[in-house]
Amino acid sequence: MSLEPLIPNRLDDEKSALVVLDQTLLPGEVVYRALHTTEEICHAIKTLQVRGAPAIGVAAGYGAYLGAKAAPEESFDAFYGYFSAVRDALAASRPTAVNLFWALNRMDKKVLSMKEAPIPAIKAALKEESLAIHREDIAQNKAISEYGLSLLKPGDGILTHCNAGPIATSEYGTALGPILLGQEKGYGFKVFADETRPLLQGARLTAFELHRAGVDVTLICDNMASMVMKNGWVQACLVGCDRVAANGDVANKIGTSGVAILAKHYGIPFYVLGPTTTIDLDCPTGADIPIEQRDPEEIRSLWYEKPMAPRCKMFNPAFDVTDHELIAGIITEKGIARPPYSESLRKLFE
Amino acid sequence: MSLEPLIPNRLDDEKSALVVLDQTLLPGEVVYRALHTTEEICHAIKTLQVRGAPAIGVAAGYGAYLGAKAAPEESFDAFYGYFSAVRDALAASRPTAVNLFWALNRMDKKVLSMKEAPIPAIKAALKEESLAIHREDIAQNKAISEYGLSLLKPGDGILTHCNAGPIATSEYGTALGPILLGQEKGYGFKVFADETRPLLQGARLTAFELHRAGVDVTLICDNMASMVMKNGWVQACLVGCDRVAANGDVANKIGTSGVAILAKHYGIPFYVLGPTTTIDLDCPTGADIPIEQRDPEEIRSLWYEKPMAPRCKMFNPAFDVTDHELIAGIITEKGIARPPYSESLRKLFE
Repeated sequence: MSLEPLIPNRLDDEKSALVVLDQTLLPGEVVYRALHTTEEICHAIKTLQVRGAPAIGVAAGYGAYLGAKAAPEESFDAFYGYFSAVRDALAASRPTAVNLFWALNRMDKKVLSMKEAPIPAIKAALKEESLAIHREDIAQNKAISEYGLSLLKPGDGILTHCNAGPIATSEYGTALGPILLGQEKGYGFKVFADETRPLLQGARLTAFELHRAGVDVTLICDNMASMVMKNGWVQACLVGCDRVAANGDVANKIGTSGVAILAKHYGIPFYVLGPTTTIDLDCPTGADIPIEQRDPEEIRSLWYEKPMAPRCKMFNPAFDVTDHELIAGIITEKGIARPPYSESLRKLFE
Repeated sequence: MSLEPLIPNRLDDEKSALVVLDQTLLPGEVVYRALHTTEEICHAIKTLQVRGAPAIGVAAGYGAYLGAKAAPEESFDAFYGYFSAVRDALAASRPTAVNLFWALNRMDKKVLSMKEAPIPAIKAALKEESLAIHREDIAQNKAISEYGLSLLKPGDGILTHCNAGPIATSEYGTALGPILLGQEKGYGFKVFADETRPLLQGARLTAFELHRAGVDVTLICDNMASMVMKNGWVQACLVGCDRVAANGDVANKIGTSGVAILAKHYGIPFYVLGPTTTIDLDCPTGADIPIEQRDPEEIRSLWYEKPMAPRCKMFNPAFDVTDHELIAGIITEKGIARPPYSESLRKLFE
């Protein structure tokens, strides 16, 4: 049983909360926190207690509902002003993953479609919409897992970077979905998990989730991927995504583009997995995706013993962009897009 | 002033010692340890107190002398039996860097060339030989630095991996030699240092040495190299080497091959720097170089907080092999070898 990252609780009463698994404490401690306000949910997203593009989207949906629940009920304009502030606060929490904006946009559309309705009815509709986003994400992950598994053979070696497992999404996950589904079916994959500096999501989360599920997983440092591929131990690379541009360029955790270049060099197919909510057709290329820069102290302070900490400048981008030419397929709940992506991605929405 | 990694002390009397900088404590503490016996020197090499292929070679020379100094003086055969045990113990300390074997072989030849001499004379000759190896390494590094600098332009961005600076060698170092020489001449390089997991030699040693020398250095996690190159910030990659095969394949710190593949992808020249003592013409290709596997606990225990430590399998190779086709030049004290290396490397020895 995988851990649930997000549990809606008592959405109708005054104790309504989104209960989130604090992923910054894994694998040492499994701690859930009940978040009641927009501020609390924004803080959880900013500090990576909730992380993974799909999970961020689901959390933003609940965040919009919980925030709007406290809004005034005199007039639509007053309600919408309040709702907009909630929406904008959530939108400012992280810049790269597009699922956040997609979910907020969907909640916004729901409100605007009900201008004539009584405010309590709008609030009830927002609750249903947030639950629907969550339900759909679970169904999407299952479909992604099945499409992904169709590309793999029993006994394959698989390399993954960062974490796109159940706790980054909903059940199964995206990149880890085919692996976990294959495990249920006895595929016997041999998985290599990049530790993923600076915040070690691969070591702390991917290795934890796969090991817990009984998968044969070996942790490697990021710089060992080339040797593992050269040794012939990897038949496919599977990664998640934070935003896919219209031309197929993919923003994902820093280091993903390097893995893709190595895979191309060694002739290994490199697959990106994510729900269609991660595809941003309004974003022409990867150059148009904003890349979050995080505090360099993350490199230094979280993982170095104090006397060992270097004192020089540090560069700490949270994501990089993988060129579409390096990607063998983009696997969504609606099927597998193949190059040329400028056509195949658009077709997914028809 | 760079720190000296190896200081011979009182080689003639009973307190004779090799005084070594304990690099495992840098940058937190600058601690020198006086090593008197073969066992102590082997331990210092195994535990990376002394590290860097050229410095290991120099330390092995002193180790052979200090060990042989205690040998019996009745007969050559008894002396040589004792010396051989010292030599073999040092040879077993680490498998990949060839400079270790080169230095021991040179000491061995010196002994065998003096079969008829009195044992005290042989011991005195071994002392001189170990000092000569050290002196020559200093001169070689200066020459390597000058050849390397000839390939660079003022203001260039340079990416380096692991540490091949003054403390890995003697003055200047190999890969860091052109950077430090350029710094003296006002070249204004912008250097990116890979932190180099698992033991963080880039963060702890390279960033420390360059920052101390006033160089503009930015520390990055290993997986950020692709993004830094894509941004156009890197005009050359400089790395050291632990063994160069006759065909130009290069064994160096794990992750080096990945950097070379990225550099090729982005059209950036990738240079390897080392003394000719690192070239092993008896080793046909990289596949023939033994690659040291180190304790996976290095990945886990040294740098993770205990509750965060993953429990799954880990793979911890200390080196990888970079294919000669990825290398733009191999820079030695005798000049710059260019492809095809099977010819150019051999010519360096003519």
